Amino acid sequence: MSQNPKLVEQITPRDADFGQWYTDVVKKAALIDYSSVKGCVILRPYAYAIWENIQKALDGMFKRTGHQNVYMPLLIPESLLQREKDLVAGFEPEVAWVTHGGGEKLSERLCIRPTSETLFCEHYKNIIHSWRDLPKLYNQWCSVVRWEKTTRPFLRHREFLWQEGHTIHATADEAMRETLDMLDVYAELCGEWLAMPVIKGRKTESEKFPGAHATYAIECMMHDGRGLQAGTTHYFADTFAKAFDIQYADKNNIMVSPFQTSWGVSTRLLGGIIMVHGDDSGLILPPKIAPAQIGIVPVAAHKPGVLETAAKLKERLTDAGIRADMDASDQSPGWKFAEYEMKGVPLRLEIGPKDIEKGCCVLARRDTGEKSETPLDGLEDAVSRALDAIQGNLLSRAEQNLKTRTAAASSIEEMEARRDAGFVKGMWCGSAQCEETVRERTGMKSRCIPFEQDRIGDKCVCCGKPADQLLIFGLQY
Amino acid sequence: MSQNPKLVEQITPRDADFGQWYTDVVKKAALIDYSSVKGCVILRPYAYAIWENIQKALDGMFKRTGHQNVYMPLLIPESLLQREKDLVAGFEPEVAWVTHGGGEKLSERLCIRPTSETLFCEHYKNIIHSWRDLPKLYNQWCSVVRWEKTTRPFLRHREFLWQEGHTIHATADEAMRETLDMLDVYAELCGEWLAMPVIKGRKTESEKFPGAHATYAIECMMHDGRGLQAGTTHYFADTFAKAFDIQYADKNNIMVSPFQTSWGVSTRLLGGIIMVHGDDSGLILPPKIAPAQIGIVPVAAHKPGVLETAAKLKERLTDAGIRADMDASDQSPGWKFAEYEMKGVPLRLEIGPKDIEKGCCVLARRDTGEKSETPLDGLEDAVSRALDAIQGNLLSRAEQNLKTRTAAASSIEEMEARRDAGFVKGMWCGSAQCEETVRERTGMKSRCIPFEQDRIGDKCVCCGKPADQLLIFGLQY
Repeated sequence: MSQNPKLVEQITPRDADFGQWYTDVVKKAALIDYSSVKGCVILRPYAYAIWENIQKALDGMFKRTGHQNVYMPLLIPESLLQREKDLVAGFEPEVAWVTHGGGEKLSERLCIRPTSETLFCEHYKNIIHSWRDLPKLYNQWCSVVRWEKTTRPFLRHREFLWQEGHTIHATADEAMRETLDMLDVYAELCGEWLAMPVIKGRKTESEKFPGAHATYAIECMMHDGRGLQAGTTHYFADTFAKAFDIQYADKNNIMVSPFQTSWGVSTRLLGGIIMVHGDDSGLILPPKIAPAQIGIVPVAAHKPGVLETAAKLKERLTDAGIRADMDASDQSPGWKFAEYEMKGVPLRLEIGPKDIEKGCCVLARRDTGEKSETPLDGLEDAVSRALDAIQGNLLSRAEQNLKTRTAAASSIEEMEARRDAGFVKGMWCGSAQCEETVRERTGMKSRCIPFEQDRIGDKCVCCGKPADQLLIFGLQY
Repeated sequence: MSQNPKLVEQITPRDADFGQWYTDVVKKAALIDYSSVKGCVILRPYAYAIWENIQKALDGMFKRTGHQNVYMPLLIPESLLQREKDLVAGFEPEVAWVTHGGGEKLSERLCIRPTSETLFCEHYKNIIHSWRDLPKLYNQWCSVVRWEKTTRPFLRHREFLWQEGHTIHATADEAMRETLDMLDVYAELCGEWLAMPVIKGRKTESEKFPGAHATYAIECMMHDGRGLQAGTTHYFADTFAKAFDIQYADKNNIMVSPFQTSWGVSTRLLGGIIMVHGDDSGLILPPKIAPAQIGIVPVAAHKPGVLETAAKLKERLTDAGIRADMDASDQSPGWKFAEYEMKGVPLRLEIGPKDIEKGCCVLARRDTGEKSETPLDGLEDAVSRALDAIQGNLLSRAEQNLKTRTAAASSIEEMEARRDAGFVKGMWCGSAQCEETVRERTGMKSRCIPFEQDRIGDKCVCCGKPADQLLIFGLQY
């Protein structure tokens, strides 16, 4: 397919060294640049444009489900962070501390938010007094800082962009429903927009969020057999309300505690998109979130009428609501083909003098490499149909990958043997000790207790005692 | 107008105590809540929704003019901040320093970005090598931190949301054109969307941005006679390029320095909107950026058919692309009227059993208080026309205020006498000493050398020496 071997040679083949392939794609597709602060990266225009499309889709879903955006401060006083003991134990080791401001030493250290539960609680205490004030369904788009030892583009940064939803409700039932509803919203984002099928489930006690009563997650399968936790939702019951002394007068005028949730997804999703769909020629973007859905390449652009026709096609497609890009530079068509491939533009349109004569152009699909001569008459419909087909095919391929890379095991030896293949399901007695033993023996952490519980036995893979739930294990990032 | 005196009584009249009126409006319209970090505020849903509408309008203008969004890190190493001497001198006194991360003392202090010129320069050095790489027209939406001594909601926070554009060009001319074009974009945002007329001009040498070759500003007039600098654009020439050693190979393959600009507006615009349009009943929002353009109040809502009719009207207006809100709570209509007034919703729709019988409703304008009986048939058009009329009227009123509050003076005594009225124009010889003397004597800082130079004399208001340019002075926030 690629007309310019020189450019493509610079990417390591995906199956030869997955980690290096990933790093190559991130760099060659101009997604990220490094800054002089280790672990803090620059999101270049192409990466940010993908993130903006994800934001737009997700923010629309949040608003349709009654959520409102707010903005909380970046800084949290040490004493506020310490109000909820599990949260502080979970996050304190990895926060960044501000100690000086305006030329003076601060009287109290401030941390840069690693997550904002404490700030929302402080605000809720101010604004919630009566049952009339509930629920509050808030979200914010911001960056957070977690001072991790090892970092990796999109998957683990010291600073990353995300959204964090924080809601507060009159009843436990309503809060639990919210927790599960938002997991569905995340699964919809992944399935419908990102073409990334997910497994929904509950985290074990050892893997849940600090301070949470229960944590739910969506888990995705990458092309190297590793699992990616793509989003989580947390049910807090009234733990935080009690720690922050938030109470409201119910309809009988009795002071009671409300119930809370939080949930988030981040730019880590971009890492997922790369690793689920990409191939040896670079990125492959799902049409629904691709900044450019089609890349137009004029062939023999110096010939009369070629550039004009190409520009007119771009205009026609744009008017039809398709995100069309045209490369009118003086680079060779081969260079442009390789560049659009590297950037994962779902569809390429080639048009030259002979095509114009015939009233046709060539459409090339990024996912299959398939080329088809397409009449200019009715081009908009043909392009829309092709984009839909690509979106659908990417999802099917990813579903197939998830299916192929999920195995079942009935002993710890079987788990170990299937480790490199992907997710491994096993029956689990529920003890943290067995979960830990599996991790020690196989290197796999528990991913989640999936909602879909196909019973594959009745004994724990680890201790052999009676077990009535399925747990999924897998290698992770 | 107001049906519920109790609610409205809580606002200090605007002309009695402008500062207190402003604080009251910010609180009562639920725009802001305070956090436990002094000077860092919470943008509540209503304020954030206004900001989102501003962002959407402005981001659209940026994209139409070829700009791309990126995201730069939050943290800047001390050594990087110090690369450009004027910038560091200007900002170092008010930065916040991170000294510890992940439980350890950092080997170098990191400041939270007060502005991101240094980060963009570092990135440009990595990615710009040839004339083919120019221009880069970048922007980012983020928050910045400046550790100010005194703070005031929206006008001066220790952390605030803004956008910062950073562009780099092959020639000085192109960079200067960008600097002026972006000032026009800001003026268009203020005039067309926020109904805030501006004076465009150049800052004096003493007032320009640290490190800039020239700074341009848009200045607005508030209702207490003070000026508000609503946005600035900076032309850097090749100062930063030289400090950061950025060079590119031109078409003759000679290494040369590129030219840069930066420009920004912030949530300070919300303060401007409040102070330009608000009155004794609260906020008045320009329809184009109002989160709710019309607030529907069912009257005698317990009577059959009222709530249903009101809900149907909301649906009809929403379908017509109008942002309609309905208050179906059990509060009294009077309470709802006062609440929509406080929040500055441009138009209110009242509908009760008698209106339904007549096939009418009542529309009440927030800006004039005018009420008019309006047929339900063709309501969408009537509402659209009313919203346009309100947008136009707010702009005219603000233009009138700016005109009334701009005086001319030919001596420093006249300047002092007219100080409280608003902007005072005077001829200026160009010396920093005269500018400073005026400030000392009158308390007014220079606002800008306006592009529109009506010659009102030929002698400097201060020293009496020959003067060929007009300078505008004013009290500020």
